Amino acid sequence: MSVWKNANQEINMNNRKFLLSDSEKPTHWYNIVADMPHKPRPPLHPKTKQPIAPEDLAPLFPADLIRQETSTERYIEIPDEVQDIYTIWRPSPLYRARGLEKALDAPVRIYYKYEGGSPSGSHKPNTAVPQAYYNKQEAVKKITTETGAGQWGTALAFACAQFGIECEVYMVRISFDQKPYRKIMMNTFGADVYPSPSDRTQAGRDILAADPDSSGSLGIAISEAIEKALQDESHKYALGSVLNHVLLHQTVIGQEAIKQMEMAGDYPDVIIAPMGGGSNFAGISFPFVGRNITEGQKTRCIAVEPASCPKLTRGEFLYDHGDTAGYTPLLPMYTLGHNFSPAAIHAGGLRYHGASVLCSQLLKDGLVEAVALQQLECFQAGITFARREGIIAAPEATHAIAQVIREANRAREEGREKTILFNLCGHGFVDMKAYEDYFAGRLADHQFTGEELKAGLADIRSLQP
Amino acid sequence: MSVWKNANQEINMNNRKFLLSDSEKPTHWYNIVADMPHKPRPPLHPKTKQPIAPEDLAPLFPADLIRQETSTERYIEIPDEVQDIYTIWRPSPLYRARGLEKALDAPVRIYYKYEGGSPSGSHKPNTAVPQAYYNKQEAVKKITTETGAGQWGTALAFACAQFGIECEVYMVRISFDQKPYRKIMMNTFGADVYPSPSDRTQAGRDILAADPDSSGSLGIAISEAIEKALQDESHKYALGSVLNHVLLHQTVIGQEAIKQMEMAGDYPDVIIAPMGGGSNFAGISFPFVGRNITEGQKTRCIAVEPASCPKLTRGEFLYDHGDTAGYTPLLPMYTLGHNFSPAAIHAGGLRYHGASVLCSQLLKDGLVEAVALQQLECFQAGITFARREGIIAAPEATHAIAQVIREANRAREEGREKTILFNLCGHGFVDMKAYEDYFAGRLADHQFTGEELKAGLADIRSLQP
Repeated sequence: MSVWKNANQEINMNNRKFLLSDSEKPTHWYNIVADMPHKPRPPLHPKTKQPIAPEDLAPLFPADLIRQETSTERYIEIPDEVQDIYTIWRPSPLYRARGLEKALDAPVRIYYKYEGGSPSGSHKPNTAVPQAYYNKQEAVKKITTETGAGQWGTALAFACAQFGIECEVYMVRISFDQKPYRKIMMNTFGADVYPSPSDRTQAGRDILAADPDSSGSLGIAISEAIEKALQDESHKYALGSVLNHVLLHQTVIGQEAIKQMEMAGDYPDVIIAPMGGGSNFAGISFPFVGRNITEGQKTRCIAVEPASCPKLTRGEFLYDHGDTAGYTPLLPMYTLGHNFSPAAIHAGGLRYHGASVLCSQLLKDGLVEAVALQQLECFQAGITFARREGIIAAPEATHAIAQVIREANRAREEGREKTILFNLCGHGFVDMKAYEDYFAGRLADHQFTGEELKAGLADIRSLQP
Repeated sequence: MSVWKNANQEINMNNRKFLLSDSEKPTHWYNIVADMPHKPRPPLHPKTKQPIAPEDLAPLFPADLIRQETSTERYIEIPDEVQDIYTIWRPSPLYRARGLEKALDAPVRIYYKYEGGSPSGSHKPNTAVPQAYYNKQEAVKKITTETGAGQWGTALAFACAQFGIECEVYMVRISFDQKPYRKIMMNTFGADVYPSPSDRTQAGRDILAADPDSSGSLGIAISEAIEKALQDESHKYALGSVLNHVLLHQTVIGQEAIKQMEMAGDYPDVIIAPMGGGSNFAGISFPFVGRNITEGQKTRCIAVEPASCPKLTRGEFLYDHGDTAGYTPLLPMYTLGHNFSPAAIHAGGLRYHGASVLCSQLLKDGLVEAVALQQLECFQAGITFARREGIIAAPEATHAIAQVIREANRAREEGREKTILFNLCGHGFVDMKAYEDYFAGRLADHQFTGEELKAGLADIRSLQP
């Protein structure tokens, strides 16, 4: 077994949770770029196809975030003001899933970090708060953003309220309609919310002209939010996943988990997290991937994507835009094409055509793994989890739970002990419509076709350098 | 100042939260009856008007809960199996509301216990779990109950899932319609949920015959749940508030708070909690009331009720039924009459005609205080709190926040320092419709009239012994 298992300490069989005090919070974010054997390829300017310069991003992001985006330093210090706000919900608890273990009756120890105790109910405030902070340092007055299921918009709304910044959110229309409570949460934190595509931007108007009934996508909503931010110098834009600095901020999760697994006297053989843009998966896994690289650990890190949006398992590693209108730089990533429109599954946070540059490079290099799951299996896993562990998980998070159950079943079949750690990235209190649809038999699995893929990738062949 | 303020320790100004480890959980529930100067009067049999005997309650409750209901022991041990499940969310955090303090700019230190991290998102599982446990000890197969806003039903559904007991919930119809997510949460934990009044019971059919559009009440739903429980020996009934054993179980909140206030180097001058049946208020305040009585502390304990259902501030101390159909014993309590039908405010957990026997006796003896607030002030307080503290409170909990703000404003006017502790009994993630109605201007304050009161009390004059 791993050298990190504490030889002098029994695995603690009695504890259900492992808590760190406020003073045990990580002092720095961990930047995996420092340890990657192949550094990520540079983002390219969509017109020149040359690597973009920091000043190209200045209209969108404050200078400190641009520096973090391109940094190769291993550790970046977390500012005091950010730490202070983190204290509202961090360090997050590490749970031993003893109720689930008992139900599965497999030779596994299952642990999970629970990020649902944050103000928005997910991991997203981990990056929303530093992003708002660095914007405040540059006296930014308003931040625009997109949101899918609403987790990110809620997190940014909260963070902006902390620093007295206005917040304007473009919410994918299908989620706007499916998840009205999310909109009201954002309003409660003081943000303005518009369904996307909207008539407030050229990008939105173009989409609506072509398809007045468009249900929207994260790609479209990003285009709208960027377009609005560019209209005023005192306005900037914020992204909730995908970018390096976003993944960087989320590494507080994995760093805390390292300390908490030590408290438990255990070390993970497998780490599992859902995959949308990648920040959730990166947050819990990167500090462990770093140990795999630098210290010879052997933890398998598995990103779980929905079968209806399988960029990691079916997409190609290509340069592509992060948004639909093509406003963003070209990023080297696993993608289904920025025009790909994923099926209307309830796990809105996973309906994104591409994977972050860092996650993509690590997958390409065989340093992380990926799997795609259908939603019915995920909801069933979520219900089992709720009854055994007492937490109703967000639809996104059920993807991790379903894979945990698969790994446990495999361990039982193989008769091999296994320690599993996963990220329970958020609660599902605001997603009960999804569970209702599941109970009512209104949900179906979605068969992703080669045709969809071919069409999506054909659109972006010409973008390659 | 209080002798309990730690003279050797600075008030800890930097911490936002105070956490106890799993091993620091209270080992016993605290029974305030042991310390009350006037013991509560006995419940009476509705027909004989003589004190009821334990065996009268046996069809409804397991023997251990009946023993707790009438116990005068100061401390009652918490069983290991209950402690194990408590560990999922207990000890709950104590927060210093530094964001709110800054916004109020008053000479106050504000602390709150946050019970929203539990499986159902409120304090209710603190009693649901021991109730399910004691029923399991007697091999009970099904538990029936009522629920208002849905917090209690969700808690009992979770607790029953832990012990493999069936759960059948009668949910006040107006909440069933207003809060569909709550019903799905209960389903997710495995419970069956029916809107009340229903046609499944005689009590429900009688109400529907008189008023087919009845929006229901807690009193009616209790009648239905009791009637169902009495139909089968292996079925029992559970109540989420009011009864002595329920209040007893909630005292883990206040006992933890005592330890956590010591960690903070502080002691409360004022304790505030919302008042429905009384379990939330009792949970945080009784251990402190006990210290007032036995150790000469001077903490003011204030129960906050909605102005539209003001049993403590406008009701009378009389014998009354706990339910509408008159199935329960007669309880000596502050009441508006068991036929009183409160206005349809969103704080469904506070729409109950009576106050628990223990809270009523303490109020009568001047050992606790009460105040009634209108809902618009409460929602405004909830929004301020969300933006400053990052937690969206349940409508019930906003009643405590509004009173905290009043106390802070008074401290500023009087130029007197004050330490305030309140119970943030639950989050509002499943109550966003209430906030939406507030933002949309659809809510109004309700003027409680003398006529309502007169009618409600006239109904119960004849019940007095």
